[in-house]
Amino acid sequence: MNVTVRGQTRHYRTVTFDAALNQVHLIEQRLLPHEFKIVATKNFRATAAAISDMVVRGAGAIGATAAYGLAQGVRAFRGRDLEKFSRHVETVYQTLQAARPTAVDPVNAMNTVRHLMQRGETVAEQQAIALAAAEEFANEDAHHCDAIGRHGAKLIRNGMRVLTHCNAGWLAFVDVGSATAPLYAAQAAGRRFHVFCDETRPRSQGATLTAWELAQQGVSHQIIADNAAGHLMQRGEIDLVIVGSDRTLGRTGEVANKIGTYTKAVLAKRHGIPFYVAIPLSTIDWKLKRGFDIPIEERHEHEVLGAWGVEQSPSAKVKNLVNAKRTYVRVANPTSGARNPGFDVTPAELITGIITPLGIFKPTELWKQRQKLGFNS
Amino acid sequence: MNVTVRGQTRHYRTVTFDAALNQVHLIEQRLLPHEFKIVATKNFRATAAAISDMVVRGAGAIGATAAYGLAQGVRAFRGRDLEKFSRHVETVYQTLQAARPTAVDPVNAMNTVRHLMQRGETVAEQQAIALAAAEEFANEDAHHCDAIGRHGAKLIRNGMRVLTHCNAGWLAFVDVGSATAPLYAAQAAGRRFHVFCDETRPRSQGATLTAWELAQQGVSHQIIADNAAGHLMQRGEIDLVIVGSDRTLGRTGEVANKIGTYTKAVLAKRHGIPFYVAIPLSTIDWKLKRGFDIPIEERHEHEVLGAWGVEQSPSAKVKNLVNAKRTYVRVANPTSGARNPGFDVTPAELITGIITPLGIFKPTELWKQRQKLGFNS
Repeated sequence: MNVTVRGQTRHYRTVTFDAALNQVHLIEQRLLPHEFKIVATKNFRATAAAISDMVVRGAGAIGATAAYGLAQGVRAFRGRDLEKFSRHVETVYQTLQAARPTAVDPVNAMNTVRHLMQRGETVAEQQAIALAAAEEFANEDAHHCDAIGRHGAKLIRNGMRVLTHCNAGWLAFVDVGSATAPLYAAQAAGRRFHVFCDETRPRSQGATLTAWELAQQGVSHQIIADNAAGHLMQRGEIDLVIVGSDRTLGRTGEVANKIGTYTKAVLAKRHGIPFYVAIPLSTIDWKLKRGFDIPIEERHEHEVLGAWGVEQSPSAKVKNLVNAKRTYVRVANPTSGARNPGFDVTPAELITGIITPLGIFKPTELWKQRQKLGFNS
Repeated sequence: MNVTVRGQTRHYRTVTFDAALNQVHLIEQRLLPHEFKIVATKNFRATAAAISDMVVRGAGAIGATAAYGLAQGVRAFRGRDLEKFSRHVETVYQTLQAARPTAVDPVNAMNTVRHLMQRGETVAEQQAIALAAAEEFANEDAHHCDAIGRHGAKLIRNGMRVLTHCNAGWLAFVDVGSATAPLYAAQAAGRRFHVFCDETRPRSQGATLTAWELAQQGVSHQIIADNAAGHLMQRGEIDLVIVGSDRTLGRTGEVANKIGTYTKAVLAKRHGIPFYVAIPLSTIDWKLKRGFDIPIEERHEHEVLGAWGVEQSPSAKVKNLVNAKRTYVRVANPTSGARNPGFDVTPAELITGIITPLGIFKPTELWKQRQKLGFNS
């Protein structure tokens, strides 16, 4: 999407590849929203470190980064010995996989690239295929998000107030995003609407990443405390909810997403407000039989006990804090601890529809449509 | 309640009066939970400033502070001229009222004191009555909270997990608190239970004040992000919810309380979890006919856009940060704004019971019991 830095507007993807220098270029997401910077990783180990250090995060974005990282590592091999090459490819693959061991997207992305590489007969051919396959993977990610945007934009009419939670934006993918895709498409179609971004404590991805994204695209928006959505719904100030998903159960239509998503779904149901989940097909889990069995990560308590930000006066009118240093402040009582579940599960009955690249489906229709949606069994 | 400072445990009230020095003593609540300090106001203007600067906050606490402030001002008068004295009393009253112009508790408290003062025939008599009446007002506040605790403690059984929101604790009253009173009473009765404190963004009163209170009393507790309660309820980890109230409608049983309360009530209803509101009688509004008409304060956006805390390493094991300086950090995207409604309204159908000093009532029973509950019409 477009980013304006010091008055210059340019299109960026979260991850791109410089074939001439054999480098992966990444938006340094840990600095956002206070600083915008592109970093280049010089070899596959540096790319793996960028994934594990969360320079890049989000399902689609780390998938594409791993695909590019694999191509990068593969292309760095010197020689023609296919056996040595094969061992080298395995090392690259394992290194990148170990960067985020529980994530499924890097594995799927690298498997796609490695599978296609087998068509090459020489080291050079396989290296060329790896690059092309990684590019193809990244392009597909962006195209799928575009398709989510086309389908989802039909839900957004002039004057609507849309609530979103966390960041399922273009920063989490190669471009466009999932939950944000319908917003960007509707904006491009000239529709005028307003977005409420849940702050999304404890990591505040809504207040930082989603708000930054929407500001960059000129989408009208305001941040709200996670506590405020219920009140706004009660007063008739929210017309539609769109969120992303970390894992969607193909068999039941249940959706695991950032902690707090379930609460918003319960509130939306009570107020008769449509609640949509936008997903690329890769997040669908066709195996698991019930949402209760999705493991819920318990994260470190310091996230709940404090906050990261840039020190300034509360009344300061500082805009565009380029190069501002973020610090951690302990907010909570120093002698108290915290519970910090990272995700929750929303049942199908609370979900109006699942927006996919192939159209919008009722959550309970996913299983019926499984062939169309790419389930191979 | 008890507070332990540098190994010394002592009983404190949020506000007390030193008759010999004619000073009001207040817990400096703006420093909590990082520092515990008692400040003394030397005259009624300083007491008014302490109210308006929020050294002291919370309905019961500012009521008692205003009552003491009135006695303090009244007692500072030198002379016997009743007419001059009366003008002086009016000045003191107006100054203290202007400190928090929209709050009803200081006005009610001072009216009580001033009404009783009329029984005195001389300046000296009226001065003595003012002091006694202010002390009586503060004692009554504490006794009412004790009574809330006695009734509410019956709801808390061994092993229960109790959720609370914001701070309706002893810091908001003279002692004991409203929503916390049943917890302290159950603890005193030897029951063992666990409290989840909602962080309560954007001002984080749960993470700061309530968590500090519970830690001081040795009540087992953990802070959670406001987003996490729904998940914990879904997993069967919350058995009971107790919150306070800023205004309770006697005619309908609707409850206005800190933003986010309504959301917790909706979640509790869905999961069949009892949801109680603990109130002193002074928060009942017998006039207003519907909750929708309760004005909802829109607060400054900087509360949502950032956080106040003590700078430290996220992994630091610092405990008891005495004298630690709090700073404000901007968390959110620098070019985004916020909506910040301070309160919301919970309808009677979501409330299991209202815990009052006179017993527990169904919200819709309040009007039927209005004579008993002190409504004079």
